[in-house]
Amino acid sequence: MASLEEQLELIQSGTAEIVPLADLKKKLAEGRPLRVKLGVDPTAPDLHLGHAVPLRKLRQFQDLGHVVVLIIGDFTARIGDPSGRNTTRPALSPEQISENAATFVAQANKILNPDRTELRWNSEWLSTLDFADVIRLMANFTVAHTLERDDFAKRLAEQKPISLHEILYPAAVAFDSVSVEADVELGGTDQLFNLLAGRELMEKRGMAPQVCLTLPLLEGLDGVQKMSKSYGNYIGLTEGADEMFGKAMSIPDELMIKYFTLATPVAPAEIRQIEAGLRADTLHPNAVKRRLAREIVTLYHDAAAATAAEAAFDLVFKQHEIPADIPEAKLKDVATPAEDGACYLPALMVACKLASSASEARRLIDGGGVRLNGEPLAKGVYQYQPAALVGVVLQVGKRKFIRLL
Amino acid sequence: MASLEEQLELIQSGTAEIVPLADLKKKLAEGRPLRVKLGVDPTAPDLHLGHAVPLRKLRQFQDLGHVVVLIIGDFTARIGDPSGRNTTRPALSPEQISENAATFVAQANKILNPDRTELRWNSEWLSTLDFADVIRLMANFTVAHTLERDDFAKRLAEQKPISLHEILYPAAVAFDSVSVEADVELGGTDQLFNLLAGRELMEKRGMAPQVCLTLPLLEGLDGVQKMSKSYGNYIGLTEGADEMFGKAMSIPDELMIKYFTLATPVAPAEIRQIEAGLRADTLHPNAVKRRLAREIVTLYHDAAAATAAEAAFDLVFKQHEIPADIPEAKLKDVATPAEDGACYLPALMVACKLASSASEARRLIDGGGVRLNGEPLAKGVYQYQPAALVGVVLQVGKRKFIRLL
Repeated sequence: MASLEEQLELIQSGTAEIVPLADLKKKLAEGRPLRVKLGVDPTAPDLHLGHAVPLRKLRQFQDLGHVVVLIIGDFTARIGDPSGRNTTRPALSPEQISENAATFVAQANKILNPDRTELRWNSEWLSTLDFADVIRLMANFTVAHTLERDDFAKRLAEQKPISLHEILYPAAVAFDSVSVEADVELGGTDQLFNLLAGRELMEKRGMAPQVCLTLPLLEGLDGVQKMSKSYGNYIGLTEGADEMFGKAMSIPDELMIKYFTLATPVAPAEIRQIEAGLRADTLHPNAVKRRLAREIVTLYHDAAAATAAEAAFDLVFKQHEIPADIPEAKLKDVATPAEDGACYLPALMVACKLASSASEARRLIDGGGVRLNGEPLAKGVYQYQPAALVGVVLQVGKRKFIRLL
Repeated sequence: MASLEEQLELIQSGTAEIVPLADLKKKLAEGRPLRVKLGVDPTAPDLHLGHAVPLRKLRQFQDLGHVVVLIIGDFTARIGDPSGRNTTRPALSPEQISENAATFVAQANKILNPDRTELRWNSEWLSTLDFADVIRLMANFTVAHTLERDDFAKRLAEQKPISLHEILYPAAVAFDSVSVEADVELGGTDQLFNLLAGRELMEKRGMAPQVCLTLPLLEGLDGVQKMSKSYGNYIGLTEGADEMFGKAMSIPDELMIKYFTLATPVAPAEIRQIEAGLRADTLHPNAVKRRLAREIVTLYHDAAAATAAEAAFDLVFKQHEIPADIPEAKLKDVATPAEDGACYLPALMVACKLASSASEARRLIDGGGVRLNGEPLAKGVYQYQPAALVGVVLQVGKRKFIRLL
């Protein structure tokens, strides 16, 4: 095992908060494999680099000899939001949950070490609770404290209804921690309240309380919003190597170090060197971004795929004579997605000043003069999903280029 | 069956609120026996006239042909207050609950018609709920609405903690209404929120929602505080006829009509006549109070016992030459109960100006010169429970009297 200091350095790299750090030190000093919990909702089957942030942190724990307890929240997913107010929490069938969970685990295993991963389903313990157990469980929490939670406080202030069942969920998640005897629980910064609820419940039950470790949210390729499928600003874990490399090359310069820290296995010490090199101008941002893109592709494919993707990336630009320095536009600034999420390309071309009217744009597309990353677009097809447009170069004729971010 | 108007008159007499009255009329117009729910906590085994108020109203419903559903809250009583904050809600053993419930039912049956009473225990349905059912149940209620409840709002404002389990209780009580398909639910004015929660839940489940009927709290013999064992201002349902009659004679004049309405079976029309008679001075308050006392004793004993109690009451005064018109004092104004609730009589005598000092008072008691309702007090005994002092005449020597209220 690594020394306490080495462990701490790795664990702390990229974290937002560790509450309390003293407890983590104490637990690490015990020299035993810690049980590190992550709870996941089996609702979003397709993972992206944002989802991978806590998984990468879990992998670091595994590499240090610790055990990951991955909890699939099948119990609450089956119930969904019975008040019908929250459309992002639909009730899922057991089949859907199994399928989503299998997809999740398959993707997570690109990052995690399956030999050090304990996979659990929280219905195992939550479905055994009866009303009396629930009452006893809830007695550990107070209304005032629960409503201090950011999202609840905000909704109360805005007089938006909070259903009573919603305030049962933090307690359920806390009970997960009790059930798996977690030493550490990971989550996004927006999850700190839930993680602390788990810590408090364990304390009240006379258990050694878990340490809460939060990770920052990763901004997407637009550099502003958090990475999310609905913003179209993501790099999916199952994307092809070429696509992944191309998208990674569109990561804003100012986010490169954050991506190195949160999304690659590059060691903290090396990241500090890269950061220093950028600051001292001894490293060129483009070279650093290529390294970042290669690291990401290597992680989800392999080193050979990364080399090939980089070569393909260069070839596109060379073959199609795309200049290295071309204007950029954020997709959300130039496109208004329809209800099904698709963008109408002729309107986008007008917005980017690549055509004077939508009808001219359609004529250009139909005439084979419009390309995405050098590939001519099919005649008569005008609708494109944002995922197909982000990080690519839109080209009209020989000389008009714009890189969509 | 009585006419709709007759039913309404009887049901409305003495009620605080009927929400909504239109629904009650509609239900009564259906001409079927309504199911009238009362939920009781099996914690207080000794009932008094305050507890009897909703029971009397239930009896009126029974006399009109309706059915009473008496729900023993054994489920929540078994759990108590797991947070340990609320000492008035201790966890009870199944044996204690059975015993308390049996005592309750025996006393309630002095008022109710057992042939039209359906006795239910809410563990029957509440113990079958699992966590998923609880989540679905809670989804029917919102946090904001629940916290508008008077007692919760007050505690939040005072920053006193409310445990999360406490906000599960109103939903449990609401689920009781669903389970027994209540047409009407009765409660004190402080219970309106819970009754309305039941109504809402039934509505959301597509059932005909229950009507909520609240009854005012009955002030005790002191005329100020609500009748309660802890204030010593009560008439217990199991008290002897003489004691009951004597205590009833100490009911403040201004509460007589309220007691007739809420605590006796005298019909509304006759109560209106009595009220008019008092106002017109054609009825003497003392005669009306005797009638009230007889009605109460008749209810819990029988008419013969009432006549005998009245004779005994008169005899005490006659034998001991207690004048009819003597000064009165409220016990709480002249006595400071010790921690065990007992009052130190010598201090009380000083406060009532029946002795100049506590040592003189002790000498008077030890000399046999102090009487309660004409009976000389034992030598060397100075501590008396409030129940033994309320409604009695304290006499020192031949000429000093005071009636304690």
